[in-house]
Amino acid sequence: MVLKAEIITVGNEILSGATLNSNAAVLGRRLLEVGVVPQWGSVVADDAQDIARAVLHSVERAGVVIVTGGLGPTPDDVTREAIAAAADRPLVLREDLLDDMRRGWTARGTTMPESNTRQAFLPARSSVIPNPVGSAPGFRLKIAGTDVFVLPGVPAEMSGMLRETVLPALAARARGRIRRFRTLHTIGWPESAIAERISRRLRCSGEWSLAYLPQRGGVDLRVGAAGSPARVNRVLADAVGRIRRILGPAVYGADGGPLEALVGRQLLRRGWTVSVAESCTGGLLSNLLTHVPGSSAYFDRAVVAYSNRAKTSLLGVSPKTLRARGAVSGEVAVEMARGVKRLSRTTLGISVTGIAGPGGGTKNKPVGLVYVGLAVGRSARAFRFQFPGDRRSVKYRSSRAALNLLRLYLRGGTLDAVETGMWRSGEGEKRIRQDGRG
Amino acid sequence: MVLKAEIITVGNEILSGATLNSNAAVLGRRLLEVGVVPQWGSVVADDAQDIARAVLHSVERAGVVIVTGGLGPTPDDVTREAIAAAADRPLVLREDLLDDMRRGWTARGTTMPESNTRQAFLPARSSVIPNPVGSAPGFRLKIAGTDVFVLPGVPAEMSGMLRETVLPALAARARGRIRRFRTLHTIGWPESAIAERISRRLRCSGEWSLAYLPQRGGVDLRVGAAGSPARVNRVLADAVGRIRRILGPAVYGADGGPLEALVGRQLLRRGWTVSVAESCTGGLLSNLLTHVPGSSAYFDRAVVAYSNRAKTSLLGVSPKTLRARGAVSGEVAVEMARGVKRLSRTTLGISVTGIAGPGGGTKNKPVGLVYVGLAVGRSARAFRFQFPGDRRSVKYRSSRAALNLLRLYLRGGTLDAVETGMWRSGEGEKRIRQDGRG
Repeated sequence: MVLKAEIITVGNEILSGATLNSNAAVLGRRLLEVGVVPQWGSVVADDAQDIARAVLHSVERAGVVIVTGGLGPTPDDVTREAIAAAADRPLVLREDLLDDMRRGWTARGTTMPESNTRQAFLPARSSVIPNPVGSAPGFRLKIAGTDVFVLPGVPAEMSGMLRETVLPALAARARGRIRRFRTLHTIGWPESAIAERISRRLRCSGEWSLAYLPQRGGVDLRVGAAGSPARVNRVLADAVGRIRRILGPAVYGADGGPLEALVGRQLLRRGWTVSVAESCTGGLLSNLLTHVPGSSAYFDRAVVAYSNRAKTSLLGVSPKTLRARGAVSGEVAVEMARGVKRLSRTTLGISVTGIAGPGGGTKNKPVGLVYVGLAVGRSARAFRFQFPGDRRSVKYRSSRAALNLLRLYLRGGTLDAVETGMWRSGEGEKRIRQDGRG
Repeated sequence: MVLKAEIITVGNEILSGATLNSNAAVLGRRLLEVGVVPQWGSVVADDAQDIARAVLHSVERAGVVIVTGGLGPTPDDVTREAIAAAADRPLVLREDLLDDMRRGWTARGTTMPESNTRQAFLPARSSVIPNPVGSAPGFRLKIAGTDVFVLPGVPAEMSGMLRETVLPALAARARGRIRRFRTLHTIGWPESAIAERISRRLRCSGEWSLAYLPQRGGVDLRVGAAGSPARVNRVLADAVGRIRRILGPAVYGADGGPLEALVGRQLLRRGWTVSVAESCTGGLLSNLLTHVPGSSAYFDRAVVAYSNRAKTSLLGVSPKTLRARGAVSGEVAVEMARGVKRLSRTTLGISVTGIAGPGGGTKNKPVGLVYVGLAVGRSARAFRFQFPGDRRSVKYRSSRAALNLLRLYLRGGTLDAVETGMWRSGEGEKRIRQDGRG
């Protein structure tokens, strides 16, 4: 028997369309991953009666109900009252929880405001769900025999509590038939090129399904199968292996391992270090690299040289090159990468210069033109990209492209291997070589 | 009497989280604009029984029900059957509609596939809603006295039919009455402190409503009112003005202007420039500042000095201070801000140093401890923060706090004004002053 879930989202801001219901989407995906099927979603106002009605409908139909939102300290946060009414139990002050909350505020260097005391009132016979990220605690209880989990609406808090408490509890219940997905992450190849390559060499057997999920800065492939856990795992492992072989260096990972974490692990393994020189990405490449816990072991520094003066004085880019080629050029990308590597004495130096837009484009150098430079030892090379989209999109795609160059170098060990790993259409990548020059 | 609406979204792809429910958000916003209040949302699978159950619940509670999705020509499109079952009427072939559909296909230069004939079967006594964009027709009917509108799930088709048929019909019913919202953005004060301050000094008159929407790195306040357009605008302007006066410097904007854009506009207006020295935020502060188009006019450079060596060699932080106080200290924050300002000759220098976690915390310097330094002229000051959450959360909150310091300085013109604008609980902000030192 498949375990069916209902998701209840509380909040006027969702009903009014001010906020997209991203919490419900995250819940849907995560539940499926542990074999629980989301069967019905409800969105209700910050109204205790509506919330209670929705809960009573849901516990009748589903094996598990997840409620998000309305757990804050303000008077319009009425989910606690509503759940107590649906369960026909009183709200009781949980002294243990109140002590924990006070300790949390004190640890953050301040005193808990009195109004937060509301958050320590839970329906009788509930268990507390700890909040690893923020101050609003969640709780779980049974209503009419159905498990009800109640989580805050702030996405990061909801996700953290889902991951640490709710999913492990549900995974234990779902035993038996499951539906599982694995996601392969690719970067650097267009969706159509991936699809063509796969359809030429692989036939879906009907045992598994394949969906293309284009992301900003890469395409994800979602492979799904259903059945007993043993069968599902075997089918998925086989399909994933075939696709990996077909796509080779375009695949950088599976199931959510971010590109920057992969690059970090490979740098650590080799004992190498990296420094960064950014222009159009404005710090985003460095921000991504330092999302990884422990990145200080291989990341030394970054220079965001937005002005030409900063490029010259901090990175030693020659004013002559800037005049002759312009700040957005392969030559400047190479000098930036060499400059930051020399400055910080790291194994690798990586640079980005380009036109993020919306202004600043010309006929020869349009918005979205970006050069990424990579310096290693005495060699350096720049790679040219033309990205679509708005300013944020260009910044993001450029930063991802730079991470991908690092990955390909760490994978192949030579600048030629980087080129081989990239997808090439006729015009795609003009390269500026300066191998062997110091 | 306010006309209340329920929105039913049909589609496995929404339940599974593969697609965000943007249709429901668009519907919510558009309905409010004509004075109809979205009161309840349901998301159901491509399952005729579930769709019919949702419709029967909704017609009981609401004055109008809008269903989207499941009107295509394939076997998993079962909304027509479900609505017919809910209305307890047969599906009948509408020859008039079939002729129209055939003509549409011919006009697009091709012949209608036979499978599309399914789309011409509607519940008896329905009216056709023309589709100005695509091929799937919609329809409307009354069930248990309630208006039910059924639209396709393709967003562009749904929006077109909403605009041309549904909204005019509803506006006629809601006559003159609208509901409108405004959003105030705050930063730096905890939600509970904002709520306490407001509840002490302001009573909701019943003319308008107030919701607290905590975000990562700030709290939004959503003020709503209903009535005639003139009345609504007057009530909202009055409420927003009062709240702004009560919260003073905690409010940084309204209706969606991001903090970094506000800071950018103020820098431009004064002709000032800024440079950035980051440690734990790893480039994120600089990334946010450069999200703003045209930021090169006031943003010169950033140095991400992750290692102590980088702090010393690039920013001139004294090795003695690093040894005596540690890299995460107000003194180092001040030296970093001074250093980057001197290096780049900008009006302002801003710095961040802290412990983003998950590792690196100690008893005296726990994860989440962050110092933000601000240097201007010969003065500099550091501000201490203790943020909750994981690595990304600490990076984000720290970067927002730094933007907020810039905003408060640009607003008040002195470092004392920055302090006054920040929220203080007993312990909250120890300050490290070095005013007047060079």
